[in-house]
Amino acid sequence: MTFKEKLGHAQKRNNSLLCIGLDTDISKIPRSLKGHKNPQQEFNRQIIEATKDLACAYKLNLAFYESAGEQGYETIHETLGCIPAEIITIADGKRGDIGNTAEQYAKIIFDDWKFDAATVSPYMGKDSIDPFIKSEDHCAFILALTSNPGSRDFQYLEVNGRPLYEHVTAKAAGWNLQNNIGLVVGATHPEELKRVRAMVPGMPLLIPGIGTQKGDLDATVQYGCDKTGYLALINVSRGIIFASAGDDFGAKARESAVKIQNEINTIRGKYFG
Amino acid sequence: MTFKEKLGHAQKRNNSLLCIGLDTDISKIPRSLKGHKNPQQEFNRQIIEATKDLACAYKLNLAFYESAGEQGYETIHETLGCIPAEIITIADGKRGDIGNTAEQYAKIIFDDWKFDAATVSPYMGKDSIDPFIKSEDHCAFILALTSNPGSRDFQYLEVNGRPLYEHVTAKAAGWNLQNNIGLVVGATHPEELKRVRAMVPGMPLLIPGIGTQKGDLDATVQYGCDKTGYLALINVSRGIIFASAGDDFGAKARESAVKIQNEINTIRGKYFG
Repeated sequence: MTFKEKLGHAQKRNNSLLCIGLDTDISKIPRSLKGHKNPQQEFNRQIIEATKDLACAYKLNLAFYESAGEQGYETIHETLGCIPAEIITIADGKRGDIGNTAEQYAKIIFDDWKFDAATVSPYMGKDSIDPFIKSEDHCAFILALTSNPGSRDFQYLEVNGRPLYEHVTAKAAGWNLQNNIGLVVGATHPEELKRVRAMVPGMPLLIPGIGTQKGDLDATVQYGCDKTGYLALINVSRGIIFASAGDDFGAKARESAVKIQNEINTIRGKYFG
Repeated sequence: MTFKEKLGHAQKRNNSLLCIGLDTDISKIPRSLKGHKNPQQEFNRQIIEATKDLACAYKLNLAFYESAGEQGYETIHETLGCIPAEIITIADGKRGDIGNTAEQYAKIIFDDWKFDAATVSPYMGKDSIDPFIKSEDHCAFILALTSNPGSRDFQYLEVNGRPLYEHVTAKAAGWNLQNNIGLVVGATHPEELKRVRAMVPGMPLLIPGIGTQKGDLDATVQYGCDKTGYLALINVSRGIIFASAGDDFGAKARESAVKIQNEINTIRGKYFG
């Protein structure tokens, strides 16, 4: 099944545009899990168990597994094993390197861990992205306009009357011969999201910045979706997985995910009927 | 000791601008090491043993250790343990992510593994780089103009009459309050290297692209060095570590490193007296 088919099925099956970000910072895991053989993995297992009918995707921020040392590699394997096969999995590493190195990163992410998708940085250009778009079953989400304050430093620089992130968007559209490229656009920039969506009407958009980063959910849903109300993956990480610091973290994560899923679907109803 | 002091000492001590890239692709390691408990680590140990008086720095390309799975994390630790304390160590991961994630990457690289420096991607701006420049003992080499073909896709886009990589250079110079930022500029672009060096006369430049990628060594030394013939780190990876695919890989790596070091120093003599 191609990535886009799998995404379509996942979004319809769970009636959800919600992507849950497993940014599992070990220092924030409830104390009661500390005695577990692998607290990070057990935390993820319980979060997934509590939310797997509510999300279209899970995104693993690789930094939080690398920082766990040797065990982190195995945690990624085991966490992916807990995610239902029909749900999209995204490796969020924002990798970008010359061809032979990018191939190594793609191999780890797609062949070893078996993620469906990966985030990649555009700065080094096409040969840094090619290894991630070899198969239509795998998607590369290219950073276009990110949600952080530093997005102002370069991404808005004007090139021929258009901001750099629109050049990235246009290039990405040109490279999308296998229909397996997506873009990352932060929810903290709703007007720009609208422009990007207009440029790439059929591309999946991974949208971080809701929750802790205070992006605008109404505009995100309105502008991030395609014409039929799909193809936006709205990511929430800390706002769900660390909704409670106590032993009720699974139940509270579920409460938070239900709330956000409902908010998203209410807004979808308003704009997409 | 600050990063720049350590770099100065290392370059003078070994009379070398050579940075050896440990892009240790497991599939290219000589057969005779395959029976070893950790072939990748043993390969690195022997390469370092054979070349440690010839280099000012070793650069570990993190992709090749991540792709080794769990063992890769330990291999990085052990490889760093083989490098003499006075030689610079660089984690080449080209990371770039929002603040709290970038902090995780910086923690792994500087606190856990204890590298001296890291390569970082500029696309996400200042808050993605800040965690890497907290201490003057650590250096962040920001990608400016990379050596690969894809460098043409975005890095040359003209912004206010100047290419994007010069904007990155100018921003990096402005952020360099602790004298601990460097830039990556590919040897495949000698004229551009000259311009970057003129913009940042006192900044370390990490210069890949000699060897397999066929950059121009004469121009790299002439334009990459500061006025006194230092501060360029000229990286060679595959051309040294895979100089032989046989059991003589250590001796051949040494031969290759001696040859390149001599070539660099002959050119330095010509331009810097």
